[in-house]
Amino acid sequence: MKIKNIDYSLYLVTDRGLACGRSNLEVVTAAVDGGTTVVQLREKDCPTLEFIQQAQSIKAFLRKRNIPLIINDRVDIAQAVKADGVHLGQSDMPLEMAKGILGNTMIIGISAESIEDAITAEKGGADYLGISPIYATPTKTNTAPALGLEGLREIRKAVSLPLVGIGGLNKDNAADVIRNGADGVAVVSAIVAADDPAAAARELKQVINEARKA
Amino acid sequence: MKIKNIDYSLYLVTDRGLACGRSNLEVVTAAVDGGTTVVQLREKDCPTLEFIQQAQSIKAFLRKRNIPLIINDRVDIAQAVKADGVHLGQSDMPLEMAKGILGNTMIIGISAESIEDAITAEKGGADYLGISPIYATPTKTNTAPALGLEGLREIRKAVSLPLVGIGGLNKDNAADVIRNGADGVAVVSAIVAADDPAAAARELKQVINEARKA
Repeated sequence: MKIKNIDYSLYLVTDRGLACGRSNLEVVTAAVDGGTTVVQLREKDCPTLEFIQQAQSIKAFLRKRNIPLIINDRVDIAQAVKADGVHLGQSDMPLEMAKGILGNTMIIGISAESIEDAITAEKGGADYLGISPIYATPTKTNTAPALGLEGLREIRKAVSLPLVGIGGLNKDNAADVIRNGADGVAVVSAIVAADDPAAAARELKQVINEARKA
Repeated sequence: MKIKNIDYSLYLVTDRGLACGRSNLEVVTAAVDGGTTVVQLREKDCPTLEFIQQAQSIKAFLRKRNIPLIINDRVDIAQAVKADGVHLGQSDMPLEMAKGILGNTMIIGISAESIEDAITAEKGGADYLGISPIYATPTKTNTAPALGLEGLREIRKAVSLPLVGIGGLNKDNAADVIRNGADGVAVVSAIVAADDPAAAARELKQVINEARKA
């Protein structure tokens, strides 16, 4: 069944292309050691079987740590490995179809690139929103215009779902994102490409925790 | 529910890269006009939403003609558009997982590249097998060694499932494939890349029908 009360505070999105030759599992292990609270496995251009195998190995690790695994885009892979959820962008499966397939068995996160996206996703029954992109980012191409902190604040006023900011976030701007209404900070390169992913996660987590207390 | 008694005799696999600028729907329409009996939508490197939209438009046409639509690789897209089945290669989702997700709601076809693959898939509950590749083919890379007519005959002896030959097939060798045990002939470029896909399908269908009668 769908897990509840997720701590979205430090949300890692994987990217093997940025991992300097380290495996997804190595990066995820270090990131969780450093305090990452949610992991999204994102694979593009990867054969389905390999994606499944990646997801299985990461899930086996995360289950021991009681950290949720979210699968990017692929509802079938989420079902196959019994992940905790899926994350769907605006070019992925529409929310209504995904809910038709998954029912209420899994968390469904939606990327919202505008206030309209956010309101639509909340009405459609999303469980959380990825607010994207907060800032311009080199790790994704074809993204919508940066929303900035003002865009984040407007979405915060418009919806009551948990919000995770993503796009160009790191230890220097993570606190701003929390202070402007996000429940969590999603990062790719700030952890995946770091020399020491565990230390990078630890530093981010501390910044986020302090901002949440304030 | 899963449809039964499928006529696998002329099985089209789409490939937009070979379609000389024609849309999948244009090629499928012409192919069905020419006598194609099953359509497999194969999209690689296509965003999920676009794949879904392709599948929906092709399904709307095929339903009117009472022709089954099979989705290549993507169990989730097959579920989303309520396709008639999925076709899974050896680098796609394992059959057991797909059956766990789909139950008995859809046809599941499996690509068998050896007699062992064929026996395993039959034991696992596949509905039909794509015997692949019969001959070397330029439309797929990383394929297993060509099985030839002898390999096809051996698989025919080993399993009782419907068999569809694929790989380098065209009007000149389609009859051999039928005579050596296949229930159907799957083609990509012989229809998709033809100057006149309807005429190409018609010619193939005639060759196949004659070989089946013999």
